[in-house]
Amino acid sequence: MKIIDLSIQDNFWSRYQEIVKKAVIPYQWKALNDEIKDAEPSHAIKNFKIAANLETGEYYGEVFQDSDVAKWIETVAYSLKNFPDDNLEQKVDELIDIIELAQDEDGYLNTYYMLKEPDKKWTNLRDHHELYCAGHFIEAAVAYYNVTKKRKLLNIVCKYIDLIDELFGLEEGKRRGYPGHQEIELALLRLYEITKDEKHLNLAKYFLYQRGTEPNYFEIEKAKRDETDVLIWNDEDNLNFGLEKEYQQDHVPIMKQKEAVGHAVRAVYMYTAMADLAVKENNQELYEVTKKLWNDVVNKKMYITGGIGSSANGESFSDAYDLPNDSMYCETCASVGMTFWANKMNKFEKNSDYHNILEREIYNGTISGMNLAGNKFLYVNPLEVNSKQQNRVDQEHVLPERQPWFKTACCPPNLARMITSIEKNLYDIEDDAIYINQYIGNQSIIEYQSNVININLESKFPWNGEVKISLDSNKQQDFKLFLRIPDWCCDFKVTVNGRESNEATHDDNGYLMIDKKWSKDEIKIEFSMPVLEVKSNPRVRNNIGKVALQRGPIVYCLEEIDNGENLAAIYLEGDNYKVKSGESDLNNMVTIETIGEKIDWKGVDKNYSYSEEIYKNQKLKVKAVPYFSWNNRGSGEMIVWINKNNNE
Amino acid sequence: MKIIDLSIQDNFWSRYQEIVKKAVIPYQWKALNDEIKDAEPSHAIKNFKIAANLETGEYYGEVFQDSDVAKWIETVAYSLKNFPDDNLEQKVDELIDIIELAQDEDGYLNTYYMLKEPDKKWTNLRDHHELYCAGHFIEAAVAYYNVTKKRKLLNIVCKYIDLIDELFGLEEGKRRGYPGHQEIELALLRLYEITKDEKHLNLAKYFLYQRGTEPNYFEIEKAKRDETDVLIWNDEDNLNFGLEKEYQQDHVPIMKQKEAVGHAVRAVYMYTAMADLAVKENNQELYEVTKKLWNDVVNKKMYITGGIGSSANGESFSDAYDLPNDSMYCETCASVGMTFWANKMNKFEKNSDYHNILEREIYNGTISGMNLAGNKFLYVNPLEVNSKQQNRVDQEHVLPERQPWFKTACCPPNLARMITSIEKNLYDIEDDAIYINQYIGNQSIIEYQSNVININLESKFPWNGEVKISLDSNKQQDFKLFLRIPDWCCDFKVTVNGRESNEATHDDNGYLMIDKKWSKDEIKIEFSMPVLEVKSNPRVRNNIGKVALQRGPIVYCLEEIDNGENLAAIYLEGDNYKVKSGESDLNNMVTIETIGEKIDWKGVDKNYSYSEEIYKNQKLKVKAVPYFSWNNRGSGEMIVWINKNNNE
Repeated sequence: MKIIDLSIQDNFWSRYQEIVKKAVIPYQWKALNDEIKDAEPSHAIKNFKIAANLETGEYYGEVFQDSDVAKWIETVAYSLKNFPDDNLEQKVDELIDIIELAQDEDGYLNTYYMLKEPDKKWTNLRDHHELYCAGHFIEAAVAYYNVTKKRKLLNIVCKYIDLIDELFGLEEGKRRGYPGHQEIELALLRLYEITKDEKHLNLAKYFLYQRGTEPNYFEIEKAKRDETDVLIWNDEDNLNFGLEKEYQQDHVPIMKQKEAVGHAVRAVYMYTAMADLAVKENNQELYEVTKKLWNDVVNKKMYITGGIGSSANGESFSDAYDLPNDSMYCETCASVGMTFWANKMNKFEKNSDYHNILEREIYNGTISGMNLAGNKFLYVNPLEVNSKQQNRVDQEHVLPERQPWFKTACCPPNLARMITSIEKNLYDIEDDAIYINQYIGNQSIIEYQSNVININLESKFPWNGEVKISLDSNKQQDFKLFLRIPDWCCDFKVTVNGRESNEATHDDNGYLMIDKKWSKDEIKIEFSMPVLEVKSNPRVRNNIGKVALQRGPIVYCLEEIDNGENLAAIYLEGDNYKVKSGESDLNNMVTIETIGEKIDWKGVDKNYSYSEEIYKNQKLKVKAVPYFSWNNRGSGEMIVWINKNNNE
Repeated sequence: MKIIDLSIQDNFWSRYQEIVKKAVIPYQWKALNDEIKDAEPSHAIKNFKIAANLETGEYYGEVFQDSDVAKWIETVAYSLKNFPDDNLEQKVDELIDIIELAQDEDGYLNTYYMLKEPDKKWTNLRDHHELYCAGHFIEAAVAYYNVTKKRKLLNIVCKYIDLIDELFGLEEGKRRGYPGHQEIELALLRLYEITKDEKHLNLAKYFLYQRGTEPNYFEIEKAKRDETDVLIWNDEDNLNFGLEKEYQQDHVPIMKQKEAVGHAVRAVYMYTAMADLAVKENNQELYEVTKKLWNDVVNKKMYITGGIGSSANGESFSDAYDLPNDSMYCETCASVGMTFWANKMNKFEKNSDYHNILEREIYNGTISGMNLAGNKFLYVNPLEVNSKQQNRVDQEHVLPERQPWFKTACCPPNLARMITSIEKNLYDIEDDAIYINQYIGNQSIIEYQSNVININLESKFPWNGEVKISLDSNKQQDFKLFLRIPDWCCDFKVTVNGRESNEATHDDNGYLMIDKKWSKDEIKIEFSMPVLEVKSNPRVRNNIGKVALQRGPIVYCLEEIDNGENLAAIYLEGDNYKVKSGESDLNNMVTIETIGEKIDWKGVDKNYSYSEEIYKNQKLKVKAVPYFSWNNRGSGEMIVWINKNNNE
C-alpha cells in the first residue's frame, strides 16, 4: 500500500495552512530580509548575499542564522503543494541560486564561518551549529525536491554532505566529531529516502552512534581550540549551563541512554532520528531504547499542553514530575520536535500512545506559539502567566505576550513547517492495512495491489467528535482499517454503511480495527467530547488541588479578560460545564462556561499579610478558552491549572 | 526612667545564649582562624595579622571579610555581659591589639585594600565594602566598650571615623560618596550614643541624606575608575543584577522613598538608621517616611516566618504579594536586620505592630538560620523544601541542609549577635512609663526618680502564654506599665496581685496599660495559645488553598521525617489540634498533631501524567514542628503552607 495523493481539506488545519501561506510565509520572508519594524533584525538572507559576493557587508546574527533560511524554504515547499504559487516558487528558486553562488568550491556552506571565521571551520562542533544548519538545508532540499522535483538545492546539499562525509567518520584521518545540536541525523535519514545512497544512511548512523563515546570528542576539540576563541554563548566556567555533557546528550552512547536529559530540542531531534533509524533498519533494540526515552518524557516530564523542558536553565528537561507552571521553558520547537518523534515511533510499532501525544502537541503546545493572525510568536509557552512574572528574574524568560520576531528565530519557522506538513501525520500504511492516526479532513488516494482507494475523510475535530470516512475503490479489496481511539474519549460509536459494525474490534494497541472487504463504504464515528476535569499525577506537587479542563484534544485555560484579575483565587465547583461556540474574536472556537467561586480578594485589606480570616467567596461565571488561543485578545493573567476542592 | 541592669533568665533564650557562648563563639573563632574542616576557609584573622606585619601572605576572602571579625567581637562583647570569661576577653583584647597594629597611621583600616589594592582605597564605594566594614567595627567597639569599658577598640574606630569624616561630606574638597552597602549609618548613630560627638551624628546624617541625590555619586565614581578594574561581583553589563540604583536604594533620596526595593539587608540596615535618626532628632517627617516603608515590607513583602527578600536575584525585595515559597531568598541577615529596625521604630512611636513583627522574627526566620546545636547555618531560609529543588538552577540557592560555614559568612555572626543582645528588645522606657515588649524572662533594675524598681519577669514563652511579672520598689511610685498584647492572641487574662485588674485598659497602640501606684506587685498574664490556622492575603497566589499553623509566636512546618514523602499531597482536616511536648530530639519543644489526609500518591501509577482519576486519600496523623527547628533531624522535604479545602 502506498499513498499517492493527499490533500488536506479541514476546517481547522486548512485555516492554519492558509495563515501560513498568506501571513507567515510573507512575514517570515520580510523578517529574513530585515523588513519588519520593531523586530530583531535577522540579516539571514543578506549573509548569503554577502557570501555569494552579491552584496558587501559583514555577517550578522546568531551562529545558526542560516537555518532560518532553510526552514523558510522547507515551509514554502510544503505550502506550494497545498497552494501552488509561481511567484513564490520563483522567489525560492532565486534564493537557491544565491545559495549556490555562496557555496564554496569544496561544498562548504555556512555563512557564519565563511564570512566571520573562515579559518575556524569545524573547530567547535559543540557550541556552534555547522552540522545543525547543514541538517536544516537537507530538510529544505528534500522537501523542495519532493514537491517541485527540482534538484538544484538537493545537489547543493549532496555536495556539502560529500564534504562532511569526507571529514567525519571512524576511518583513519577523519575527525570523530558529531553535532553539538542534533538535527543532521534526522535530516540525513530523510535524504536517504530520496537518494537511497547508503553513504547518507551511514553518515546518519555514524553521527548517532559516535555520540557519547570515549574519549569525548568535544573535550578533544576544546583542547585544540585557541584559548582566545570567543565562545558565543557557552561559558567554559559553567559548561552548558552546568548541565555538562547531558546538555547535548553525549554523556553516554545512545544505546545506553535511559532518561531524557539536557536541552529538550536537541534531545527530541535525536530521538526522532533514533526512531527513524530503527524503522529503516527494523532495529528492535534501538526502538526499545527509544521507547524507554519516550515513556520517560511523556509520563514524567511533559506538561498537559504537550510542553517539554521544565527548566529555563539550558532550556532543558529536569527531574521526573518537576513541572512548575510559571518558570518552565516549554519551547515551541521542542513541542514541534515531539510531533516528529511521535510520527516516527508509530511507524515502528502501532500504538495509539504515539498519536495521542502527537494530537496533544498539534492542538496545544505547538500552535500556542503563534497568534491567530500568524504574525506574533512565542518561544516559551507558559501554563501560568501572572502579573508578577516579568519582574522576577527567575521567570523573565516567560514573556506575557507574543513577539513580532526573535533574535534566535528557531520557533516561528519550525511551527510553520509543522503546519504546512501536517499531512504526514494522518496515515500510516502497511502492506494490507491503513492506520488513520489523526482525524484531520482530507482527500487521499491510496494505491493497493495495482488499484486505487479513494478516501474522503470529513472531520469536525477538534471542536466536535464526528468523523465520516468514505472509501471508494473500483474493485472490492480486503484490507484492515485501523482507527485511533483518542485517549480523551471513553465513549464512541462507529457505524459502517449505517449499521453498527460487527467487524470493528478494539485492538490492544489503542486502535479500532475494521477488517472487511471494502469497495464503496462509509464509516461514521462519533467520539464523544465531554468536558474533562483532568488531574495530573500527584507526584507533580504544583498541581495538587487543581484540575485542568480538556475537551477532545483541546486543553483549556482561563484568561484575565474573561475571569478578572487574580485567577489563582478561582475555584471550580461541581461539573456543570456548558460548551459554547461562535465567538468571532476567537475564530468561532468552542469555549467552556461553568460556575465557580472566586475568593473576594478585593474585599480583603491590602494591608494585612496573615490572619485567620475566613475568606468570603463570590460566585463567578468561569469561562475557559482553548489554551493555544491565549493572549489573542490582549495581555493579562492566564492559568491552565485551576483550583478545585479535593474530592469534590 | 532608665534601665540600670538587665539579665536574661529565660527558658528559651538562656539556652540560645548558652549555645552561642559554648558552641557558636568558639566555632566562629575557629572559622575565622580557618580551623574548621570541610568548611570554606575564612582567612579573616590572618588578613589582619598580615596587615599588622605579624605574618606574611596574601589577602584572601571576600571584600567584606573584615566584617566577620567585627561581628565576632560584637557577639563576644554581649556574651561577656551574660557570661563573664577572662580567657575569652583576653582573646578579644589580643585581637584588638592586632587590629591596632594593622591600622594605618592615618586611621585607615580595611585589610582588603591595605593588602590587595592600596592605591585604590575609596574608589569603589558602590561594590566594595569599606564603609560597611567600618560600620561593623563601630558596632563592635561600642558593644565592647559598653560591656568592658575598655576604650582601645573605640579609639581605633574613632580615629578611623575621623579619617572618613575628613574624606566624605558636602564641604569643598570632600568626596560626596556614601556606602554601597548601608551599615555605617546605624553604627555611627550607636557611636554617637557613647561619644555624644556631633561629628558622629552628622556623618550618619550626611550618609543618609546624600544617598540618592543627583548627580549620582556612584556614576561619577565609576567614570573615574580604571576600566581594567576587576569588579568582584557586580557586572557592569548587568548592573546590580539588573536592579540598577534600586539595588542599593540610591534611586531617590531617602525622604522620597515609598516602597521597599532592592537588596533586602541593605534596605533594612538603612531603614534602621532612618528610624534611629528620627528618634534621636525627634523627626516626625523622617519617621513617617520610614513607617511607610515599614508598612510596605510587613504588609506586602514579608513571609509568615518574618523572611524578607522574595527574589534570589540581587537577594532583593520583589513586587508586593510576590512571595513564592520555594525560590525566595529570605536571608537570615535580613530577618536579623528586621529586628534592629522594629526595635528603633517602637522607640519613636509605641505601636505593638513593631514588636509583633520583632517577635515573629526572633522566634522564626532568624533562628531558623542555625541548627539547635549551633554549628550549622543557613543563609537562605525557604518555606518549602522539595526533593527537586537542588536540581533546579532557579532554586539551587535554596540549600536543603544547614552548612558548616560560608565563603560569605555574614549570617552566622549576625544571628549570634542578635541572640546575645536579645535583651535590648525587652523594654522601652519613657519618663513615667515602662513598656514590656517581649515576654522573655529577665531580672531587671530600673531607676525612677532616684529610686529603683526591681522587675522579675518569668515567662514560659514561646511554648506557653503564662507570664508573671513581679515589681518591687522600696517606695510607692506612680507610673504606667504597658504590656504588649501579641497579635496572635485574642484571649488573655490579667490579674494584678491576684485580682482581675480594674486599672488595666486596652490601649489603642496594641498595649495593655496599667496605671497605678506600684510598690510590691505581682502581675500575672495568661495569653491563650490555641493553634491557629493562618491564611495569607489572597493576593499571594502561591498560598491560596493553604494554611499555615501557628501557635503563640511560633510558626510550624511539616517535615518529611514525621509525615513521609510528598508533603504537597497532604490536606489538613477539621481543627482538632493536639499540642504535645517533651520530644528530646527537639529540645522538648511543643509539637502539634492533628488528623489529615494524604493523597495515596504511591498508589498512583508512576507512568501516567494526566487523567481523570479521582485520587484515594489515606488518613494521616499529621505532625507539625516549629519552623525554626526544621532540618535538625536529617534532611528531607519541608513545607510551611499546607493544603486545606476552601471554606472547610
